[in-house]
Amino acid sequence: MKNYILLNENAVFYECGFSCDNVVFLNLNNEKYFITDARYTVEAKEFTKNCEVIESSNLIEDTKLLLKKNKIKKIVFDPNDFRLSFYQKLTSELKTEFKAQENFSKLKRIIKTDEEIEYLKKAAQIGRDGFKQLAKYIGKNGFNEEESFLHFKAIEKMSSFGKYDLSFDPIVAINANAAKPHALPTSKRLKLNNLILVDAGVKYKRYCSDRTCTSNANFEKFSFKREQKFKNKKHQKIYDLVYKAQLNAISKARVGMKASQIDNLTRSVIEKAGFGKYFVHSTGHGVGLDIHEFPNINSRSDVIIEDNMVFTIEPGIYLPKEFGVRIEDTVVMKNGKALIL
Amino acid sequence: MKNYILLNENAVFYECGFSCDNVVFLNLNNEKYFITDARYTVEAKEFTKNCEVIESSNLIEDTKLLLKKNKIKKIVFDPNDFRLSFYQKLTSELKTEFKAQENFSKLKRIIKTDEEIEYLKKAAQIGRDGFKQLAKYIGKNGFNEEESFLHFKAIEKMSSFGKYDLSFDPIVAINANAAKPHALPTSKRLKLNNLILVDAGVKYKRYCSDRTCTSNANFEKFSFKREQKFKNKKHQKIYDLVYKAQLNAISKARVGMKASQIDNLTRSVIEKAGFGKYFVHSTGHGVGLDIHEFPNINSRSDVIIEDNMVFTIEPGIYLPKEFGVRIEDTVVMKNGKALIL
Repeated sequence: MKNYILLNENAVFYECGFSCDNVVFLNLNNEKYFITDARYTVEAKEFTKNCEVIESSNLIEDTKLLLKKNKIKKIVFDPNDFRLSFYQKLTSELKTEFKAQENFSKLKRIIKTDEEIEYLKKAAQIGRDGFKQLAKYIGKNGFNEEESFLHFKAIEKMSSFGKYDLSFDPIVAINANAAKPHALPTSKRLKLNNLILVDAGVKYKRYCSDRTCTSNANFEKFSFKREQKFKNKKHQKIYDLVYKAQLNAISKARVGMKASQIDNLTRSVIEKAGFGKYFVHSTGHGVGLDIHEFPNINSRSDVIIEDNMVFTIEPGIYLPKEFGVRIEDTVVMKNGKALIL
Repeated sequence: MKNYILLNENAVFYECGFSCDNVVFLNLNNEKYFITDARYTVEAKEFTKNCEVIESSNLIEDTKLLLKKNKIKKIVFDPNDFRLSFYQKLTSELKTEFKAQENFSKLKRIIKTDEEIEYLKKAAQIGRDGFKQLAKYIGKNGFNEEESFLHFKAIEKMSSFGKYDLSFDPIVAINANAAKPHALPTSKRLKLNNLILVDAGVKYKRYCSDRTCTSNANFEKFSFKREQKFKNKKHQKIYDLVYKAQLNAISKARVGMKASQIDNLTRSVIEKAGFGKYFVHSTGHGVGLDIHEFPNINSRSDVIIEDNMVFTIEPGIYLPKEFGVRIEDTVVMKNGKALIL
């Protein structure tokens, strides 16, 4: 791919080791250009690799100039990253042909380098520490606290008091709220033996972690460990089923399978037990610089799984107005098998 | 404006009192439609006013169907809110003419209703309380803490432990970092008599507050009050100048002025003192459901200021590698004059 243009912060970071929220990145005849405004040029010059940094007060016009100067006939772009107004201004009165290719940066990033995997591992480790700190807090002080407060505590513990950026806004959901896969925190209070679901992650060197735990609020013994004893028998039954589905996929996932086969490793367990229709989302998604990357692990994906792919395995069962259980880990494919990061 | 389509969450909320992150809102021959997926339809039906809620597993296709069924010839949209890929899919094989009109929702919202002003007032009040709590914390425990930790504490205090959403990620910047208008928090530590700048806001019923304080880190006496005694004389000189510029604009702003005249009320004071080139941004911006709305208060804006407009007045002076001062309040125009919210 000779000529391409990128606007997405993570896509740009992947190319040159630096990024910011106002950049046009160009690869023209294998020369790379990082066009940004005066706020970012000092750091861009220091941290980008193998790029010419161009300071600009009008990124669109300077991009056009560069395309003209280099007589670029054709350039690849991702239409998901372009706002219509930007695209129209950029392409007006320009002879260059803009060739849409959805997700071409994410597709490049589907197989991680060993260095990226080290960062993802480190992120996962920091994330696990955050969960431990949160468990300690809930065990001691969580009784009768509101979801919104516990949500704030999740941010505090995961970020280690602001030291790490979060991969996404955490989900903290109690009982019936946990039945909504993307629950927003409410003023519901945590009571003894409630079910509580926490989905959270942190970033290390921009690489994301992602993990979900579902636990029984037994306070003094509270933990996010995978072995959970629920007071409520239905909680336990559903939890055990989801856990079984997750373990089935983690232990049987192999390089060479289609992503849809891995999806089926969780889904078939849940379907067999009669809860298929309550598993309302896909089994997982790739994780890297973006929290949602490739490969998608769903029933329609023919992508062949390879070593050094990193993705989540996160089956869930959501019983509307009752409760929901999701168990999620991020795995890396190594030597043909899935290892939890 | 008979027919229009909206995708932006706040623009949709303004129309019907509810919103979510996956919605197409249509106004067709004065009938309103809220198209969303199954996750949101229950709440949408409960909370939207005067709309038909349509549950959809393919928002683009269902929008097309509705445009065809209603024989819509022409529809207005904001090209800033449309991703190119979405626009292309929506408009392909459709006879409707899509007429681009940038910012038409924000333009509608430039004059606030009395009810909106009440919400903005309440947001400002909660924001001020947050600043007070943060000042108390810094006075007691801020010495030698890192910017990134104080940034986290700003989130804690402003959000009141997660009870309120923030208007934006706060800025907490010490000395030379404060010279960057959009500083990211670092591991720099707060020392006695450092200068510290905090820019933060919260939301009340989705309406934003926005305020910036610059203070002297004198610990036991620490406050975000406008009257500041800096140990460093240059800090004091620049602070007094910025404050004078801000007060000049707040006291002299009048309905009927152009926005550029209000910009000049701050800028002229700073220019006269010889620091014009260090005031690197505009005087202010509108505030409402979005943190950046109309009117823009800059040197090029001919917008005539009217009662019930709400905007910030935030002059600043940034001395690279030394320090920066910004003082910001949000004001409402009432009975011809500016009142701090």
